[in-house]
Amino acid sequence: MIETLLNHRSIRKFKQAPVEQEKLKRIMEAASRASTTGNMQVYSIVVTSDEEIKRQLWESHFRQDMVLQAPLHLTFCADFNRFTKWCRQRGADPGYDNFLSFLTGAIDALLAAQNAALAAEDQGLGICYLGTVTWMAHRFIEILELPQLVVPVAAFVLGYPDEQPDLTDRLPLEGIVHNEKYQDYQPTRIDQIYQPQEALPSTANLIIENDLESLAQIFTEKRYTRKDNRQFSRLFLEVLEKQGFMVNDGE
Amino acid sequence: MIETLLNHRSIRKFKQAPVEQEKLKRIMEAASRASTTGNMQVYSIVVTSDEEIKRQLWESHFRQDMVLQAPLHLTFCADFNRFTKWCRQRGADPGYDNFLSFLTGAIDALLAAQNAALAAEDQGLGICYLGTVTWMAHRFIEILELPQLVVPVAAFVLGYPDEQPDLTDRLPLEGIVHNEKYQDYQPTRIDQIYQPQEALPSTANLIIENDLESLAQIFTEKRYTRKDNRQFSRLFLEVLEKQGFMVNDGE
Repeated sequence: MIETLLNHRSIRKFKQAPVEQEKLKRIMEAASRASTTGNMQVYSIVVTSDEEIKRQLWESHFRQDMVLQAPLHLTFCADFNRFTKWCRQRGADPGYDNFLSFLTGAIDALLAAQNAALAAEDQGLGICYLGTVTWMAHRFIEILELPQLVVPVAAFVLGYPDEQPDLTDRLPLEGIVHNEKYQDYQPTRIDQIYQPQEALPSTANLIIENDLESLAQIFTEKRYTRKDNRQFSRLFLEVLEKQGFMVNDGE
Repeated sequence: MIETLLNHRSIRKFKQAPVEQEKLKRIMEAASRASTTGNMQVYSIVVTSDEEIKRQLWESHFRQDMVLQAPLHLTFCADFNRFTKWCRQRGADPGYDNFLSFLTGAIDALLAAQNAALAAEDQGLGICYLGTVTWMAHRFIEILELPQLVVPVAAFVLGYPDEQPDLTDRLPLEGIVHNEKYQDYQPTRIDQIYQPQEALPSTANLIIENDLESLAQIFTEKRYTRKDNRQFSRLFLEVLEKQGFMVNDGE
């Protein structure tokens, strides 16, 4: 188990071989055993293999090739729709149309997603999470026909790996772990934490290719810009509103 | 690995034995290997063992005994503070003061949390997630001295189990998994999905104890009420504002 955890690589090239139903079932079982708030299981998982639907998903994932290539696309959604319907059918008055309930569903969905990812990897399959599912949540809601109180928070492609990438570099543990309380970062500590990543030959190449001065600038000017972040923030908050998670009339 | 995933139980009674440093280090390594958006690792983990700080955490977790009993309390935070400081130190202009960035950090933190939980369980330790960390986020920010752009999204207690609870019931897989697209729930399907949980002897007892008519009512009237959900929604949205994640001046 520890080996599976420590050996994770995101896979972006897949073989054509389909995922066996038995393996997929194990993945779903593993997802359903994840911790869940009050045992409510306020999430849903959409498993998509249809070529036409995958093509629509691919468009909304900014046409990342792996979405077409991988046999399966899994979408993990915060879901208070099922629970709310159950409550109404049982003479109970559900109050899950608010931000906290979205957050609760999102946490449930993400813990289940990571269990699913690990169960996949443990069975020789590969995955790659797609952050675009939150950026373009409004599109995934249309394509997958997600009703009120259902919002996608994670997605990954799934299949047999057709590449063996190296382990990605990570920050030193001291850079992300705090003892007792949070110790805020002083400039010398920031230097220490990021120095190994900045010293990689691949980093030097990236900076030259992008005609910039630092790795940090590649993030702020190319990959995750203020303009994009603000635009996608607005879109996602609109999605929460439209899907019914922002009711708060001050009761 | 699959066994560890399928055998998760939340542990609420702990032995006094401390967690060995070597095991804790493996847990942190496993956390740091989780998928992370753009390899930014925009999360932090606070490991608390100090009795006095744990007492404060316990108060804010509505005095759940396990917080005092377990040797360790781990808090997983969305963290754009470290990344933003790094950008500023490298002549880059960070734009991560918005809701999408919070969501990105939250996703990173939750995938890391689940890796940590599984690495713990795989080493014979037990954990229990504490949903109260989002309800009372403002208090955990004070206690753990979390700066701007840092917000807690998950926490669990960690230690050696002093109980062996049964596996918790879960909804049937067909209840949470959708093929191709989301299939909305019809009344008969809702009945099928929830029937096994409703038929448990423990459910009948709960309904009698609470003098209510259905399991659903126990959720809506006792455990997760509209009033509480709305109050904690307001508090958490205020936290996002105060921690600097809601800037969106329309640029």
